Amino acid sequence: MNNFSFYNPTKIVFGKGEIAQLDALVPKTAKVLLIYGSGSIKKNGVYDQVIKALGKRKVTEFEGVEPNPYFETCLDAVSIIKQKKIDFLLPVGGGSVIDATKFIAAAALYEGKDSWDILSKQVEVKQAMPFGSVLTLPATGSEMNKGAVITKSETKEKLAFHSDKVFPQFSILDPETTYSLPKRQITNGIVDTFVHVIEQYCTYPVRNQISDRFAESILQTLLEEGGKVMKNPTDYDIKSNLMWAATLGLNGLIACGQPEDWSTHMIGHELTAFFELDHGVTLSIVLPGVLRVMKKDKLDKLAQMASRVFGINEGSRTERADKAILAIERFFRSLGAPTHLSDVNLDASCIDIVVERLEKRGWALGERHNITPSKVREILTNRI
Amino acid sequence: MNNFSFYNPTKIVFGKGEIAQLDALVPKTAKVLLIYGSGSIKKNGVYDQVIKALGKRKVTEFEGVEPNPYFETCLDAVSIIKQKKIDFLLPVGGGSVIDATKFIAAAALYEGKDSWDILSKQVEVKQAMPFGSVLTLPATGSEMNKGAVITKSETKEKLAFHSDKVFPQFSILDPETTYSLPKRQITNGIVDTFVHVIEQYCTYPVRNQISDRFAESILQTLLEEGGKVMKNPTDYDIKSNLMWAATLGLNGLIACGQPEDWSTHMIGHELTAFFELDHGVTLSIVLPGVLRVMKKDKLDKLAQMASRVFGINEGSRTERADKAILAIERFFRSLGAPTHLSDVNLDASCIDIVVERLEKRGWALGERHNITPSKVREILTNRI
Repeated sequence: MNNFSFYNPTKIVFGKGEIAQLDALVPKTAKVLLIYGSGSIKKNGVYDQVIKALGKRKVTEFEGVEPNPYFETCLDAVSIIKQKKIDFLLPVGGGSVIDATKFIAAAALYEGKDSWDILSKQVEVKQAMPFGSVLTLPATGSEMNKGAVITKSETKEKLAFHSDKVFPQFSILDPETTYSLPKRQITNGIVDTFVHVIEQYCTYPVRNQISDRFAESILQTLLEEGGKVMKNPTDYDIKSNLMWAATLGLNGLIACGQPEDWSTHMIGHELTAFFELDHGVTLSIVLPGVLRVMKKDKLDKLAQMASRVFGINEGSRTERADKAILAIERFFRSLGAPTHLSDVNLDASCIDIVVERLEKRGWALGERHNITPSKVREILTNRI
Repeated sequence: MNNFSFYNPTKIVFGKGEIAQLDALVPKTAKVLLIYGSGSIKKNGVYDQVIKALGKRKVTEFEGVEPNPYFETCLDAVSIIKQKKIDFLLPVGGGSVIDATKFIAAAALYEGKDSWDILSKQVEVKQAMPFGSVLTLPATGSEMNKGAVITKSETKEKLAFHSDKVFPQFSILDPETTYSLPKRQITNGIVDTFVHVIEQYCTYPVRNQISDRFAESILQTLLEEGGKVMKNPTDYDIKSNLMWAATLGLNGLIACGQPEDWSTHMIGHELTAFFELDHGVTLSIVLPGVLRVMKKDKLDKLAQMASRVFGINEGSRTERADKAILAIERFFRSLGAPTHLSDVNLDASCIDIVVERLEKRGWALGERHNITPSKVREILTNRI
């Protein structure tokens, strides 16, 4: 097991009816900025529950955070915070809304000239505004971690930052808020969680029994519940398991003591930035390519996953690894997720654009830092 | 899945050499009370590592915290804190030392007349001194939770308290510090962890896939590594997995959304209080009795555990449950843990004493609050 440190102070309040807890969780005298997306929370009753729970607190609304939230949008929110002397942020929505809030929280108190430096130059976040979240779309894990991904519309750059200062103080997870999600978002959420777990698991073994088994537990749960959710979108237990799985998939826990390989996300971010694909869509396309091209490096874990997660016990390690990768592709397709670039009307010409950007950044991805731009070309060529 | 809330702000720093991190984790100007037990840390090099890492900080020592720490001992530490104007506590040891520190941290700032009320009357802890720990004996999970168990020597009462104020700020877990543990303490630690997990798992199913599988992951790891550790006491990976298992066994995580049954611990505490048995010893004796006597109530989970943890797939659910209980007893005995009262020279006469105490308290234990004193009699009679 590798050395590690783990720290996660976010309080999770989970279950039906728990949005009412906002009254106990948000300071009584807070001037709240309620941050949300396209307004679906006004149709499914979540908005009403939130407003009711906030009672007499002064609430300003900031609507319109887009998927893959823009830096420019965040700056608009920062202006409002300064104008209205807001002192508490409350994102209500999915990972995009919470990610935007993390950046807004940091940018509002940023003392430098240009808060984009937090992303582009990884300038340390020294302070951030307090916030708690109400999650309505399980996927990114943002509700219980310290990371966020923001896109600069102007330059089509999608970049991440991490800081202990932007852990949500609390996150409320009520599975009933996910009943009305469109199928596409359910699929994206399951794929996103699945890939998060794979990226912290499918590297090389370090005799880390607990993190391995915890990761396998989440994968098994996604396979089990993911196979049922489309036909049972208002089954409380299915939705509960998927929601908690998404949070645990990226709250730091299963990364403890493990090597990690975030190449699927890094390649996917470029596809989203250039071609405006859903984040989840890029992952279901890229992951099988990463696993195939890097199969030799990941063979032990692929074979372990084949057996423990998919019940594939026959054949050589390589055969089992191949079967496991096929099983993942089949699972993604069963959810309606694309697995090839052609599924989203992209052809080989997109590859140069992505590879060129990675070459410019000088990134070598993967647990062994050997996923070079030329390997990325191989990976994406596998996905045409 | 049941509603739940989860909050755990303790920072874990895990791995060989990490005691040196104390210099970064303890405030530079702290006046530290270093709290430890019988002095084994002076023999195995841990004390030297700690003193070196603390550098020029002013350190006062408080030696002699006993297993099942006494309230009276804690009060001695509180006096020293007041005399020496200590402002940071640093327990170095196992669960007893950390539990004692939690109580000391609360008692030092307690404004009432008698700090025993925190335990006997469950008076709310409003403030506590800051502290971080160095763990040297994986077992209780105290290094990453908010609970502590303290014994009043005078009245032979062993009672618990819980408070968000007594989470350690940090805990350093270096598996190498556990290389020199005597066999008895390794056994007690594995049994304690195993029973913690069972008490949060072996109740009735609530379709909580993740918490179930996480619990099973820890049990599987204990079986796997517990079977090897006695012959390989200095195997870093075995010790790492056992150490992390113990922390995760009682940090609140696997309890999320689950019913719980702490009857084995509650009955065990009385056996320790009256007969001075090791905590772990009481658990390996009591648990099989609880599972046998409450088998009907726990049948679904016992059968699930039989299959998923022990690979027992043949026979009816009742047969599988029986086999799982036998497998647990065999595992405990393979570690050298006693499983009957006669193994520790107790006979039926001890039962009345325990049952009488529980009757006085009016406790009905278990996930369905149906483990009444007369059920406890049945459980202990099963263990003669």
